[in-house]
Amino acid sequence: MTYQQQISVTAKGHGEMHDLTEQVAKAVTTSGSKPVPSTFSTLGVRAPSARLNSSRAWSTTSPAILDKLIPPSRNYGHEQAWHDGNGHSRLQATLLGPWLTVPVADGELILGTWQQIFHLECDVRGRRRTVVVTVVRD
Amino acid sequence: MTYQQQISVTAKGHGEMHDLTEQVAKAVTTSGSKPVPSTFSTLGVRAPSARLNSSRAWSTTSPAILDKLIPPSRNYGHEQAWHDGNGHSRLQATLLGPWLTVPVADGELILGTWQQIFHLECDVRGRRRTVVVTVVRD
Amino acid sequence: MTYQQQISVTAKGHGEMHDLTEQVAKAVTTSGSKPVPSTFSTLGVRAPSARLNSSRAWSTTSPAILDKLIPPSRNYGHEQAWHDGNGHSRLQATLLGPWLTVPVADGELILGTWQQIFHLECDVRGRRRTVVVTVVRD
Repeated sequence: MTYQQQISVTAKGHGEMHDLTEQVAKAVTTSGSKPVPSTFSTLGVRAPSARLNSSRAWSTTSPAILDKLIPPSRNYGHEQAWHDGNGHSRLQATLLGPWLTVPVADGELILGTWQQIFHLECDVRGRRRTVVVTVVRD
Repeated sequence: MTYQQQISVTAKGHGEMHDLTEQVAKAVTTSGSKPVPSTFSTLGVRAPSARLNSSRAWSTTSPAILDKLIPPSRNYGHEQAWHDGNGHSRLQATLLGPWLTVPVADGELILGTWQQIFHLECDVRGRRRTVVVTVVRD
Repeated sequence: MTYQQQISVTAKGHGEMHDLTEQVAKAVTTSGSKPVPSTFSTLGVRAPSARLNSSRAWSTTSPAILDKLIPPSRNYGHEQAWHDGNGHSRLQATLLGPWLTVPVADGELILGTWQQIFHLECDVRGRRRTVVVTVVRD
């Protein structure tokens, strides 16, 4: 009843965006041999400092906005314990959330014209991330 | 196994709220002829500048809070490319997220006493939005 | 096809965190007699002023960050109507969102090494909360 696929994302570091819309749409197509009338898919990223979300404008401005709301290099609790420069990364990531649910109809993602699914890297270092797409087949 | 229904929302512009709780509850009732012991429903809105969320107090104060965190009319990347006054709309919308998942038991939404499901319009212009409700039937 | 379980959380007040990872993992194990190849679970909390999310560093710094973004004791609309000191609680809670979806493979939650599922209390008073875990079994 469910189909699951992993998408790999290689990010260079803080603020890098990846548009995953096409890959998720392909996972939905691959999930079933026939178009199903109504269902949905969920996405999750296996990391406390990477996020999934959707929008368009966000892809150009969001890292700057997040750095303004939760600035880097502050004396966060995480920073004082780990000294890895990633305190703000995890806090920013938590604000956006690591999971999405997208409705599907007739075998296609239901998204608005300008709506994209993207991965946002918040970690200060380059990272290889795994995004898990689970599609519910009727 | 799944049931899907669309809810239309006509919003006059930035900051307008719509309480969708009753309509979503009705979709859950419509979805099956008998109460199911445990399942859930998901909601998605087809737009990069509209959001779904839940709370009560939010409905009176949230637009003001969002305008404070991400003020309108700034030199956002989106704004410099599109000049449509909607840069902050999409950034605010991304902060809240466009998808919800609500647990269901015995054919009813599981919500707290003061918990409502609402649609928040972030676009500066009036818009007609489509919210897609997908109910999983056991 | 679905399995549902409730987890109780007793929180002393604003900013208290509870790590629910182990309890959710146990609910997934309990949900089926055999490991399923791919599915997912959803979590919801029945309250407008409590939240679910995931991260690690968040657990030490998030209450302070939220209090900075949306400070307590302001003249929020909620506050002027209810005078219960909880205006910021509900606004902070809405920013994080009350629902999560976590992928599952072979009967185990798919989470990163440092990724935890937690409950964050935003209410100023102590509260007993109910978190509803719904697991989809293939």
